Amino acid sequence: MKACLLAIGSEMLTPERIDTNSLFATGRLNEIGYDVRLKAVVGDDLDDLARAFSWALEWADLIVATGGLGPTSDDLTRDAVARVLQLPFDVDEGVLERIRQRFERRGRPMPANNRRQAMVPRGAALLDNPGGTAPGLWLRSGTRIIVLLPGPPREMRPMLDAVVRDRLAPDADGRLFRRVVRLTGLAESEVDGRAEPLFIRWASRPSPIRTTILAVKGQTELHLAVRTGDAASAHAALDAAVGELQAIFGASIFSTDDRNLETVVGALLRERGLTIAVAESCTGGLLASRLTDVPGSSAYVDRGVVCYSNAAKVDMLGVPSELIERHGAVSEPVAVAMATGIRSRARTSIGVGVTGIAGPGGGSAEKPVGTVCICAVIGTAERVRTFQFVGEREMVKVQASQAALNLVRLLVLGEDVHEWTERR
Amino acid sequence: MKACLLAIGSEMLTPERIDTNSLFATGRLNEIGYDVRLKAVVGDDLDDLARAFSWALEWADLIVATGGLGPTSDDLTRDAVARVLQLPFDVDEGVLERIRQRFERRGRPMPANNRRQAMVPRGAALLDNPGGTAPGLWLRSGTRIIVLLPGPPREMRPMLDAVVRDRLAPDADGRLFRRVVRLTGLAESEVDGRAEPLFIRWASRPSPIRTTILAVKGQTELHLAVRTGDAASAHAALDAAVGELQAIFGASIFSTDDRNLETVVGALLRERGLTIAVAESCTGGLLASRLTDVPGSSAYVDRGVVCYSNAAKVDMLGVPSELIERHGAVSEPVAVAMATGIRSRARTSIGVGVTGIAGPGGGSAEKPVGTVCICAVIGTAERVRTFQFVGEREMVKVQASQAALNLVRLLVLGEDVHEWTERR
Repeated sequence: MKACLLAIGSEMLTPERIDTNSLFATGRLNEIGYDVRLKAVVGDDLDDLARAFSWALEWADLIVATGGLGPTSDDLTRDAVARVLQLPFDVDEGVLERIRQRFERRGRPMPANNRRQAMVPRGAALLDNPGGTAPGLWLRSGTRIIVLLPGPPREMRPMLDAVVRDRLAPDADGRLFRRVVRLTGLAESEVDGRAEPLFIRWASRPSPIRTTILAVKGQTELHLAVRTGDAASAHAALDAAVGELQAIFGASIFSTDDRNLETVVGALLRERGLTIAVAESCTGGLLASRLTDVPGSSAYVDRGVVCYSNAAKVDMLGVPSELIERHGAVSEPVAVAMATGIRSRARTSIGVGVTGIAGPGGGSAEKPVGTVCICAVIGTAERVRTFQFVGEREMVKVQASQAALNLVRLLVLGEDVHEWTERR
Repeated sequence: MKACLLAIGSEMLTPERIDTNSLFATGRLNEIGYDVRLKAVVGDDLDDLARAFSWALEWADLIVATGGLGPTSDDLTRDAVARVLQLPFDVDEGVLERIRQRFERRGRPMPANNRRQAMVPRGAALLDNPGGTAPGLWLRSGTRIIVLLPGPPREMRPMLDAVVRDRLAPDADGRLFRRVVRLTGLAESEVDGRAEPLFIRWASRPSPIRTTILAVKGQTELHLAVRTGDAASAHAALDAAVGELQAIFGASIFSTDDRNLETVVGALLRERGLTIAVAESCTGGLLASRLTDVPGSSAYVDRGVVCYSNAAKVDMLGVPSELIERHGAVSEPVAVAMATGIRSRARTSIGVGVTGIAGPGGGSAEKPVGTVCICAVIGTAERVRTFQFVGEREMVKVQASQAALNLVRLLVLGEDVHEWTERR
């Protein structure tokens, strides 16, 4: 079955903005056997929108549109669909009341504009939006299905999941089963080279496993997908494939179940009753922020310090100033002193120290931009490594926080760190 | 004039990959007055491609397609266009020879497949590709223009620049001039309601200013665009429009030049020779990380602490434990003690304290998830506010870091904070 995704909003037709909702939606629709044949971005213009919807209705079995359901005069998705399907509008009093109450809870009257969000093309079913004021809409036109969802990802995602589960999946024929294997500490080309024989073998099986390799922000992802009507055999095939990858890559694989590295590290700490404190220089708080992105992280994150100045390293962590003078602020001895300093002050199980040069300034021939020293300590065990990251300031920060999280993971698991290729 | 961008390639219809060529192309086309009204990603399927081209030809003055010009059997862009325009193919011997020589220089014979790249729909002009084997193609159909370019950005970009310079710009009537005005501390619907009379007036002028309103991560953006052949009058019109917005929204506007809030705050601190230290609880390091995302921020960011535990607040900031017991860790007195504590320890000009409940756990009837107290101090001036943010953990963190940065900005500017609507 053919799906068409429409991302609605003029801002995504500027040179600065991109639609990313379609990635999430594509993944979810693929899983239930929909083939996304075209995705388009359309601006907040009634004629353009109506033209796009009528065109997609000519060939797509399913149209999922995101955005343009807000309260303002340029939120025109409802109007475009009503025009194309020639449907009148009704005001839904239930929706209106929920919007009013939402504003009331925040101590404000509902602006008159928000009334637009309660306008429903006749015959459309409402899709509950637990995270915002705009409900989604579900419409049918002959055999065609149209789903309208709000644009903000945190509203769109759970709503699409609910639509898939309750309305689309029950009718789907054959599903796409997927698994994402995430690795860190290895270059994409190295992962690709070592995994290629498996990929070739998997592709030639009766139910082939399709593979995609993708490098993102300090990690490499292997996406495996198999399409079948038989869930049990799909899971068995994917489990076996993941096992083959684990045999090759060992502890470089940190996740096979969609969890990100901070969530994996958090679960590990929680499971073992460990606590953590981090001392950051070049990552500037990103490491602590990622650790605390995980719900419930207050159970194991005690504290963090961001010590940009040398004085802060001395005052807050007890790093001896002669150590900084002798080795430089970006050095393994200083990373070790930061990790042990924060651990002893916080009285946590684990201490982490990160010091480096995020750029664009501050580099030298000996220590160029991207040089980062990271230390993790637990009990009497200590790991310290110097990395050389490539990219701009924010990418250096991301990669350094990733390497620090992974160092903690390997240290807790008792694994060595020999897999690292970014080591200088 | 209306432009349609087509990005061609099935890999961009997976959940992992995105088209980014369109951002570059949009920027270049806007500069010469083309309005990108729709952009779409189409897979390597002849029917889908032909359908997309014929549809775009119905309404777009210019179609720029990237990708699908390679040598393999799934490179079908040429075929789709030839089918839609009903053009036969000719083999261009000059192109064939250049491809052959290119391979020869690399010491290899030309694979037979590459002959496809010398197939030219009759009447098409060739666009030189200095960086690769596939030439681009330029076709006209009545008043419509079709430009076909290869997909790799390093080939596409210089080729598009050449097309713009040599073929499109000489015929263009006017350019699109843009300005982005960013506000924080006001709800999108409130901004829209107050700005709407301006939008209506601007839209009805001889050279209308088009406006788009967009809410993202704790801020609202107004995009203004005017099309004209006269750069000076465009800048004057946009300056005047920005001035009108400033008269309405005052200090709620933090940027009119594409800078984000951390960059604006950083410039302000640097300009005035101020330094900053931050103490964070619920934002978990995100505030420090955003401040240090700005290149050169080590000039004014001294340090940060993330004190998740009460012990950390007491040890590292000297927050009296009886204050925490009396008012709770999430309270204005504790936020003030955190801000003054970090400032006195760091000996910086400014101290910031953020304490709140990011969720999903930890909320109560009195202090629900999303309650965040923020204090900023400078000299004898102090601002402390309690906010009630909506959304999940990460959104609460983002909004709280945004509110904290804005509080610092307003404090430094000596502005009051009465604009805030999220206040409880």
